[in-house]
Amino acid sequence: MNNTFGNLFKLTTFGESHGIAIGGIIDGCPAGIALNFNKIQSELDRRKPGQSKITTQRREADKVVFLSGIFEGKTTGTPISFQIQNTNQKSKDYTHNNAVFRPSHADFTYQKKYGIRDFRGGGRSSARETANWVVAGAVAKQVLNHLVNTIKINAYTSSVGSIYLVKPYQDLDFSKVESNIVRCPDTSIAEEMISLIGSIRKEGNTIGGTVTCIAKNVPIGLGEPIFNKLQAQLAKAMFSINAVKGFEYGAGFCSTSMKGSDHNDLFNADGTTKTNLSGGIQGGISNGMDIYFRVAFKPVATIMQEQQTIDKDGNITTLKGKGRHDPCVVPRAVPIVEALTALVLLDFLLLDKVRKF
Amino acid sequence: MNNTFGNLFKLTTFGESHGIAIGGIIDGCPAGIALNFNKIQSELDRRKPGQSKITTQRREADKVVFLSGIFEGKTTGTPISFQIQNTNQKSKDYTHNNAVFRPSHADFTYQKKYGIRDFRGGGRSSARETANWVVAGAVAKQVLNHLVNTIKINAYTSSVGSIYLVKPYQDLDFSKVESNIVRCPDTSIAEEMISLIGSIRKEGNTIGGTVTCIAKNVPIGLGEPIFNKLQAQLAKAMFSINAVKGFEYGAGFCSTSMKGSDHNDLFNADGTTKTNLSGGIQGGISNGMDIYFRVAFKPVATIMQEQQTIDKDGNITTLKGKGRHDPCVVPRAVPIVEALTALVLLDFLLLDKVRKF
Amino acid sequence: MNNTFGNLFKLTTFGESHGIAIGGIIDGCPAGIALNFNKIQSELDRRKPGQSKITTQRREADKVVFLSGIFEGKTTGTPISFQIQNTNQKSKDYTHNNAVFRPSHADFTYQKKYGIRDFRGGGRSSARETANWVVAGAVAKQVLNHLVNTIKINAYTSSVGSIYLVKPYQDLDFSKVESNIVRCPDTSIAEEMISLIGSIRKEGNTIGGTVTCIAKNVPIGLGEPIFNKLQAQLAKAMFSINAVKGFEYGAGFCSTSMKGSDHNDLFNADGTTKTNLSGGIQGGISNGMDIYFRVAFKPVATIMQEQQTIDKDGNITTLKGKGRHDPCVVPRAVPIVEALTALVLLDFLLLDKVRKF
Amino acid sequence: MNNTFGNLFKLTTFGESHGIAIGGIIDGCPAGIALNFNKIQSELDRRKPGQSKITTQRREADKVVFLSGIFEGKTTGTPISFQIQNTNQKSKDYTHNNAVFRPSHADFTYQKKYGIRDFRGGGRSSARETANWVVAGAVAKQVLNHLVNTIKINAYTSSVGSIYLVKPYQDLDFSKVESNIVRCPDTSIAEEMISLIGSIRKEGNTIGGTVTCIAKNVPIGLGEPIFNKLQAQLAKAMFSINAVKGFEYGAGFCSTSMKGSDHNDLFNADGTTKTNLSGGIQGGISNGMDIYFRVAFKPVATIMQEQQTIDKDGNITTLKGKGRHDPCVVPRAVPIVEALTALVLLDFLLLDKVRKF
Repeated sequence: MNNTFGNLFKLTTFGESHGIAIGGIIDGCPAGIALNFNKIQSELDRRKPGQSKITTQRREADKVVFLSGIFEGKTTGTPISFQIQNTNQKSKDYTHNNAVFRPSHADFTYQKKYGIRDFRGGGRSSARETANWVVAGAVAKQVLNHLVNTIKINAYTSSVGSIYLVKPYQDLDFSKVESNIVRCPDTSIAEEMISLIGSIRKEGNTIGGTVTCIAKNVPIGLGEPIFNKLQAQLAKAMFSINAVKGFEYGAGFCSTSMKGSDHNDLFNADGTTKTNLSGGIQGGISNGMDIYFRVAFKPVATIMQEQQTIDKDGNITTLKGKGRHDPCVVPRAVPIVEALTALVLLDFLLLDKVRKF
Repeated sequence: MNNTFGNLFKLTTFGESHGIAIGGIIDGCPAGIALNFNKIQSELDRRKPGQSKITTQRREADKVVFLSGIFEGKTTGTPISFQIQNTNQKSKDYTHNNAVFRPSHADFTYQKKYGIRDFRGGGRSSARETANWVVAGAVAKQVLNHLVNTIKINAYTSSVGSIYLVKPYQDLDFSKVESNIVRCPDTSIAEEMISLIGSIRKEGNTIGGTVTCIAKNVPIGLGEPIFNKLQAQLAKAMFSINAVKGFEYGAGFCSTSMKGSDHNDLFNADGTTKTNLSGGIQGGISNGMDIYFRVAFKPVATIMQEQQTIDKDGNITTLKGKGRHDPCVVPRAVPIVEALTALVLLDFLLLDKVRKF
Repeated sequence: MNNTFGNLFKLTTFGESHGIAIGGIIDGCPAGIALNFNKIQSELDRRKPGQSKITTQRREADKVVFLSGIFEGKTTGTPISFQIQNTNQKSKDYTHNNAVFRPSHADFTYQKKYGIRDFRGGGRSSARETANWVVAGAVAKQVLNHLVNTIKINAYTSSVGSIYLVKPYQDLDFSKVESNIVRCPDTSIAEEMISLIGSIRKEGNTIGGTVTCIAKNVPIGLGEPIFNKLQAQLAKAMFSINAVKGFEYGAGFCSTSMKGSDHNDLFNADGTTKTNLSGGIQGGISNGMDIYFRVAFKPVATIMQEQQTIDKDGNITTLKGKGRHDPCVVPRAVPIVEALTALVLLDFLLLDKVRKF
Repeated sequence: MNNTFGNLFKLTTFGESHGIAIGGIIDGCPAGIALNFNKIQSELDRRKPGQSKITTQRREADKVVFLSGIFEGKTTGTPISFQIQNTNQKSKDYTHNNAVFRPSHADFTYQKKYGIRDFRGGGRSSARETANWVVAGAVAKQVLNHLVNTIKINAYTSSVGSIYLVKPYQDLDFSKVESNIVRCPDTSIAEEMISLIGSIRKEGNTIGGTVTCIAKNVPIGLGEPIFNKLQAQLAKAMFSINAVKGFEYGAGFCSTSMKGSDHNDLFNADGTTKTNLSGGIQGGISNGMDIYFRVAFKPVATIMQEQQTIDKDGNITTLKGKGRHDPCVVPRAVPIVEALTALVLLDFLLLDKVRKF
């Protein structure tokens, strides 16, 4: 029932994996901002299925069309509606899902909650929904840059299975993220990750991983102090992504074994801090330092191996994935993480316009 | 600006650490439910400062008073207002905070965001606010039990610094959580934790840790599919707590190095699953299995050691904590984590009343 | 910026009068309800332009298409997205609006608020938006009837200019509302109204009127006591309609000159009341008696007569309407009033599911 | 359940007529604004019971106390909590209400909706709640004036029973509103009104009336185009007041019999209009002209005459008011109407900060 995200810059979405179309309405976009539609499509292409040998081979054109809220290339302050047609639904691939609940999928919970579900390709629970977020995030990025032209949001694959990129983000060249299909800015680690995903795919299996995201030059003051802290809203956004199991920012779980004297970030005279274990946020509010966080993705549930499961009537049966699925979602999750980050930051930037006068 | 939590069962709070009082309004509580006020006070006592040698020695009576919404001991469906007087403010302990920003505290960000702040004891950014949440959570627990009398929510200290309780939660006796002051259900690990906190305190330092929480017998169907997933709302709630840096549920960060074939939870004939790496949630919706998650707390920022910092004008100075602070927040965080969990589950339980007919 | 209506049954809309399409997303519709799409289209046809000689001659097919949220004819609990193509935009009729502000239109205020506007046919400020509401209201009517199959919502034209239908609603036969093009259930008054509108149209002018609406068999208990009173939400809904200038319910403005002893509705033994000057609502909550209210519509601002106005640069100029406009909006407003009433009642019916247990 | 009003400047209230206290939390007040507390108390005194011979003789000190959100006399951007003790509850006056439903009161609907109610003095349904709104409105007025120092909001009694103040508001001297106890700016009409209320009171009866309100110098651009139109939110606010049965703005119900050529407001070169039948709003957005509207109040339901009614078990009985009640609420409603207007305008002023950049 809650298909809306955001307070002032609000995204409401719709659509099932194998329905006619997916799409959304962006409400609250400031007026008068020229949009570059090619850039929006580019972001969407980064998330597109079938983009490389390590993603699902489902081929969707994923062309976004805008229906309202834009006049002569500029936002008008009215709702921006957009749509992506579902062109390549192979629904018959999924008819076997009707009577059978796929393990570790949302089939069982949707059926129990609603008493009915569109079982084709996961219906509304499909990660296809995230294409909507990428569109809205691409709009948000442009609005953000219009308002504060220095903000930079960069995500990348920081681990696949047990292959970790351990270098601190400060030592990475983000311009290389798109230079390889796994979206890891370290070329040699990227090779290892690609090779691992390849072998996982061959055995009909899947593997998890992490995405790290850094937002630079975020103005001081974004975030609300109590129930809408910047980190809380970022966490909420990330846990909206299918397959996400963990979120940490700044020193994260590592901070739990640290002493205060080691963890505290001491101030420089200009208000910056010597270290940044806090991850750019204090008391729920950005402090001007880099915001960085890490998102944990479980392995995709659909595997090409036979698994025991049950049908609607509780009969034990077996199931083997037949659709076209990703062996590892992490590479395609990178633009999704960036998109949600942009949505959160822009929303707080707008909210912050009324904090004081 | 956002001091409200929840969609149907809504808590709005107010109050500064050293103001007259803190408190809140619960809106949307169903009518006709008899409340046990002693139980509410008991929960508050679990969070109270000065409760043991390993907590802050600030002594607050922390007596909660209800002002509305209850008639002849029962809820009436109208707003339930409550208040806790601040009786033991030693504000002069904090006057030194006026001109100086404490490292890794919210002083700097509040000042920059609002241009003004109540600097006494952190003002609104103080964790004293969490007392309000414990009151509301205690009400929520009773309402939950009225509606689904089998739900059990149990949190405990699962690590302090590098001392971990590694036993799986299934092997623990939750009735022992309150048997020691660190709130760890394993007595011998508890001793180690208490000893560590004691030595940390002596050196005027602080230490982090984790809280694990388990919700049993949650009905199938709680949670909303897209932007209000059960895990997303739990994460948002937990990141509202001061000092929280990480959240994971089910297999969490560990799932990132697992294969799908190992991570998937296979069904039993009755719809339960053989394993529960999913942590009781699929597609954002509870599946009837135990919900469990882990929350990471950084070390408290206020230490009794001299640290370099700056004043409002950017002059370098030093600061040494003088107030009464916790060497480790984790033991007092246990009832806070439970309270927020109760708020989230009750809200979803009410939302779920309108899913189908 | 606020293009969403409702709390649990939420409608979010988009679209400009002369854009590609208008449409919306219904979020929060209960699952498992079979929808009759012909009935939805029928409601839309009641609002359609070009339906008779007394409405605008703009011809729009106004065919609604559903894109999501429905599976095998039933609602699934996921967002229901719908769309109406704009097929007959004669935008060149409106190019003269670019530089000139039409008197008593929203041209001036949109331009000042946003600094940009889609000036073709009023863009977002066009009453074309109300087609979206009729679609959502038609869905809401069916859900309402599924839940409480006795609720009946009937609106009709109760005055055009100075021609009033003075009979109390209890003496009217609502089945005759659709028997004439002005939607007045009294045939002879209807004739007078049609004739008046005809002569107004000939002089290139417009005229106002009122719509009366009655909701029968509404369950006791709908509405929230303080800021979301049933009458308050109905009023808010009605004032969302373009051209509405007044709203009254029950005895309305007449009650201001009455004494308490005359106005009070005395109880019968069964809890019904002997009179119903209260209009079916007490303290913001339905009491089971008929809910009735009256909505005032001003004359349409676009007239086919020359009027003085200004251009963007503040130069005095003149303007004469050239588009295709209604001489009186009231007949087409009847289904809009009903639709919004259905949205309000359904939302409160869902909210009421959690009042007590 | 919905005890919150506003989007960015949000008021959440609590309290029953004969409970310990009433009060509220203002969330979203911009930081750094110095508040004049005497002015806030003065507004509350205008609403206070027992203020003159034509109001209820219930005597309440109605002293407001602020508990949070203010530091050294200025707002801090954190929630402003306030309280008014109930000092003079004569609850025994109301014990007769327990078993009996007062005609045209909310007793019956609360009981049916919630299955329980605080029957003393109407509990939550009492107009005592409006004292909270006056406090919040008084804060809002000061914030408004801080932001746009020319805005003036003036309400006055425009009719009592059939005694009407027919002069247009432009001819009135608002400084005289407080010069008489009925709050009518025309001294001789005021005398008639006072005399009428006196005679109505003597016969143990009550009478209705209207309040007119004018907001001058409202900036162009306040209000949202579709579901949150300025007039819609004003209407919603006014219908929150107990006893309100009608609302109209600009030409209101009179516009229904007008022709477009007579109703349209033609522009002057500076963007002002020659007439202002629109009431200062076009398309839901303020146009810079005076905003004016009229609110209809029914006669108070509690009369000192014997009336037939029923008890909880449906037995016919009789009831005669015994509490202390107003013979006409209109004079005390004047500050309430102003307060709600201030809340609405301030909220829109804040929302408008993000419309364009």
